[in-house]
Amino acid sequence: MAKVEIGAVPYVYPVPIVLIGAMVDGRANYATVGDCAIMGIRPALVAISLGEGHYTTRGVVATGAFSINIPSIDQLALVDHFGIVSGNDVDKSALVESEPGTLDVPLLVSCPVNLECRVVEECTVEHRRIFIASVETTHIDEAFVSEVDGRRRIAPLTELDPILYALDNRYYSIGGPIGTGYQEGAKFAPEA
Amino acid sequence: MAKVEIGAVPYVYPVPIVLIGAMVDGRANYATVGDCAIMGIRPALVAISLGEGHYTTRGVVATGAFSINIPSIDQLALVDHFGIVSGNDVDKSALVESEPGTLDVPLLVSCPVNLECRVVEECTVEHRRIFIASVETTHIDEAFVSEVDGRRRIAPLTELDPILYALDNRYYSIGGPIGTGYQEGAKFAPEA
Repeated sequence: MAKVEIGAVPYVYPVPIVLIGAMVDGRANYATVGDCAIMGIRPALVAISLGEGHYTTRGVVATGAFSINIPSIDQLALVDHFGIVSGNDVDKSALVESEPGTLDVPLLVSCPVNLECRVVEECTVEHRRIFIASVETTHIDEAFVSEVDGRRRIAPLTELDPILYALDNRYYSIGGPIGTGYQEGAKFAPEA
Repeated sequence: MAKVEIGAVPYVYPVPIVLIGAMVDGRANYATVGDCAIMGIRPALVAISLGEGHYTTRGVVATGAFSINIPSIDQLALVDHFGIVSGNDVDKSALVESEPGTLDVPLLVSCPVNLECRVVEECTVEHRRIFIASVETTHIDEAFVSEVDGRRRIAPLTELDPILYALDNRYYSIGGPIGTGYQEGAKFAPEA
């Protein structure tokens, strides 16, 4: 299987699309990013990357905290719009409903999931500010949480309906479940 | 829309599943992780997180480099297996076909996409080692690269068929395209 070399392109796909929330000069602001990932479960860690000159970045640096707000597909127009316009030009706090978090972060109410994150490490690479943060607490719309046999169950991704993105500049939906972690490996056979 | 607080859970979803490759004591090794993200496009940056005691981590620290190998769904058993077994116990280089990269990293041939990454920053948070890296070059299976009107076109994700994962311990497929970046925002209307 021959390969084509395409140069220095970070072709990791797909990425989850999220809205990073921060208080900037006392007002809620949100920026749409695809540069967001889990960096550990216990401890609960995430990483995000923001442009150094971005409006949201100023709030994250000032408060040492941010929220990750995970939208559903029915919020696609909002998500795309908030990736186009800057808080420098538009007061986004007037366009959506926010609630204060436990930390000094805004939570975007219409998103089904909100994470409150506290910065624990950061670094700058050229014009990118990268923040490693601990997740202090997470809020999920009660419509997606149920109790099954006395245990809390969070709805599958097909119900949470997240927005994915890739470097082909397309948004994608999630497909269906295709297997269970730590079980599919039983079918493994070495390559010839 | 009332929310339920579920505590310190990094509920970012879905995550792309990748195989992190590193040379460990001169042999190729791969670890399956979901802790991988784009951290910037220009410059091309990524972040990964590995357990401090993991076998692959030793190779990344020693060489200052790693590969990101992105599998397709037909490799699900391999992916899951390589997340279960450790290079401490199994010589994974004997189970899959590797090619050397330009950097001192192994490329997993059967994956349609391989990125060669050079560590530029790192930090440790408890037992997690987090590596920020620049993508030096990327290889894509020629079956997924074509030329349209004189421009290089990479196949849509529906053809690349990546494996997604979420904290419900399920693997998922990608769905279909639902929109184009920087266009959907035109439909935005402020929340009531």
